[in-house]
Amino acid sequence: MSKLPNIGTSIFTLMSKMAVEHNAINLSQGFPNFPVDERLTDILSRISKEDIHQYLPMSGYPPLLLKIKKLVEKGYQRNIQPETELLVTAGATQAIFTAIQALVNSNNEVVMLDPSYDCYEAPVLLCNAKTVRVDLNDDYTPNWERIEKAFSSKTKMMIINNPHNPTGKTWTESDFLALENLLEKYPEVVLLSDEVYEYITFGPKHISVHSRPKLFNRSMVVSSFGKSFHITGWKVGYLVAPEHLMVEIKKVHQFLVFSVNSISQVAISEYLDLVSVEELGTFYQEKRDYFRKLLQNSRFELMPCEGTYFQVASYAAISSENDVDFCKRLITEHGVAAIPISIFYADAKDLKLVRFCFAKDNTTLEEAAKRLCAI
Amino acid sequence: MSKLPNIGTSIFTLMSKMAVEHNAINLSQGFPNFPVDERLTDILSRISKEDIHQYLPMSGYPPLLLKIKKLVEKGYQRNIQPETELLVTAGATQAIFTAIQALVNSNNEVVMLDPSYDCYEAPVLLCNAKTVRVDLNDDYTPNWERIEKAFSSKTKMMIINNPHNPTGKTWTESDFLALENLLEKYPEVVLLSDEVYEYITFGPKHISVHSRPKLFNRSMVVSSFGKSFHITGWKVGYLVAPEHLMVEIKKVHQFLVFSVNSISQVAISEYLDLVSVEELGTFYQEKRDYFRKLLQNSRFELMPCEGTYFQVASYAAISSENDVDFCKRLITEHGVAAIPISIFYADAKDLKLVRFCFAKDNTTLEEAAKRLCAI
Ligand SMILES: CSCCC(=O)C(=O)O
Ligand SMILES: CSCCC(=O)C(=O)O
Repeated sequence: MSKLPNIGTSIFTLMSKMAVEHNAINLSQGFPNFPVDERLTDILSRISKEDIHQYLPMSGYPPLLLKIKKLVEKGYQRNIQPETELLVTAGATQAIFTAIQALVNSNNEVVMLDPSYDCYEAPVLLCNAKTVRVDLNDDYTPNWERIEKAFSSKTKMMIINNPHNPTGKTWTESDFLALENLLEKYPEVVLLSDEVYEYITFGPKHISVHSRPKLFNRSMVVSSFGKSFHITGWKVGYLVAPEHLMVEIKKVHQFLVFSVNSISQVAISEYLDLVSVEELGTFYQEKRDYFRKLLQNSRFELMPCEGTYFQVASYAAISSENDVDFCKRLITEHGVAAIPISIFYADAKDLKLVRFCFAKDNTTLEEAAKRLCAI
Repeated sequence: MSKLPNIGTSIFTLMSKMAVEHNAINLSQGFPNFPVDERLTDILSRISKEDIHQYLPMSGYPPLLLKIKKLVEKGYQRNIQPETELLVTAGATQAIFTAIQALVNSNNEVVMLDPSYDCYEAPVLLCNAKTVRVDLNDDYTPNWERIEKAFSSKTKMMIINNPHNPTGKTWTESDFLALENLLEKYPEVVLLSDEVYEYITFGPKHISVHSRPKLFNRSMVVSSFGKSFHITGWKVGYLVAPEHLMVEIKKVHQFLVFSVNSISQVAISEYLDLVSVEELGTFYQEKRDYFRKLLQNSRFELMPCEGTYFQVASYAAISSENDVDFCKRLITEHGVAAIPISIFYADAKDLKLVRFCFAKDNTTLEEAAKRLCAI
């Protein structure tokens, strides 16, 4: 009778809850534990007395839309129309849900990669559509032969995530060339690109689908101020799409949420004048390097990490338990919460891998590493 | 090709935009224009430096859930389990969308009354289901004969709205008895009750579906802090449902928005210790009475108003234009924005009625009335 019979409480909720119950260090759900930039909380405190407490326009606070325009034009190297191509959303999750609801029809197929972040599946199922999952290569690069085989006349959308949660993999020029070649054969297919970690890359600069002349007219990009400004609780993200897609997305948005929290939009809008997103990569690269160094002498094997604030690690040398059981025991016996990688796979593939979030202050990373090195 | 071919930009967006463009007094979209309670903005300003900027739990900030429990138990006269029966949402609109997505299947029918607030239709259509609209009586009471005829084996949900936007009508004991009789014959049907104006009633006290022993186990109630605390921009509402329905609703919620703005939840939670929602009815009754008095000598005929912050008025003595054209001219020639009642009807019935929002400071009401009396 359930419309989502196979969906339970998300692993992020479960693991964070267990972490609290067992007083474990929470490296599971992806959120920072260091203080928010004082300049942002100063703005928040100052504007609270201003006239910012009633509905903002459906698409977003107009000054914020202008700042987002400036921000994204740098990366896309082209002009964006704020009134018709931008939408402020209640977090990236709402942006993704809304885009899927607006564009995917009954019996359509949505191609996505395996492993994938966990919020793409449910909105597709709620459209009476189905997802077609394609295994990434062992090094987490897209396998273009397999992807091409997954496409059919039923394919309506492809969902990509770059940088990739959980593996930290970033897409290269040659991935985009392959994607462009493939999509040329499928003019009806739209592309939903989850780029919430766009500023958190440690190698070559992030390439957005919206910087690709052959792709942008059929592509939607989702991003998140929560990830970029260490304010995951605010739930403010945005979506960029060409007008012909945005028209449909706004129809759903206006009856799904109507508009987004006014206080947060006004604060972020002012903050965008002060902050530089470019520093984010350096900031997290130092965290990554420090965390990896701390784990050097552990029995975990660390996978490469090109972006995001997640480190994937193999515990094969430690235990042969499945990854969910291992993560539970990691909390209860060792006081560290992580995310089992199997939950990102359609078939719950158990590769003895876990994901640690390193968006934590150094003291936390040190204490966590001490516990992990003792295993 | 559109999934919502007949849906355009909502009338609230259009009229508010025209009001700004023509510098008209905006009595269209329902939001207050007076300052927010200082005690609430004080809290906001104080907590902005606290550790409240990361994801809150999926169902809501636990202390807020406890306060909502206390708040609703007074009205429902029964116990509520905060962990399993309450959900904080990004406004009432998201609560409604989520409940419909979670529970309505392809080809189901959803019974709702005509006229109805405009955000119920789209989420039903996105489920590949259809709405069956039933005309209210001329005095806006439900017509139980017609409602019973609208029910069938395909009916999955009934949506009611009490107090009713746009007419201000509130449901009586005898309406509920009729509803209970009817629903007894349809054990599979669930009830979605939009009660966002629950505290804004001017006659008998509001009756919630959740106070009805025969109804609560199949009912979802939606409410809104935006309406109750004059903070429509914050977009924080909540949903109350029995566990067996809430389980399904949370599955959708966690992949639709995951969680709700943290700053607002923490602020509202503290504010609930200081504020009494009981005063809201008196406050708006004075506004209603004052606004009606100001319009006494106008050529508008005022309809009864038992609740909400909307006053419906007939302009039949002024013009024979249809109500959308009249509203446009009201903005451009007379400097007052209102909402045409036809947009609440499935067939855009033109009854020469408009809706004014009286949630405005007295100076605004006086200036608006002056303009309206001059017509
Ligand atoms: C929405 S909770 C999950 C946060 C996140 O992005 C992650 O941990 O991957
Ligand atoms: C979501 S904008 C509309 C606000 C409202 O509730 C109304 O004006 O009826």
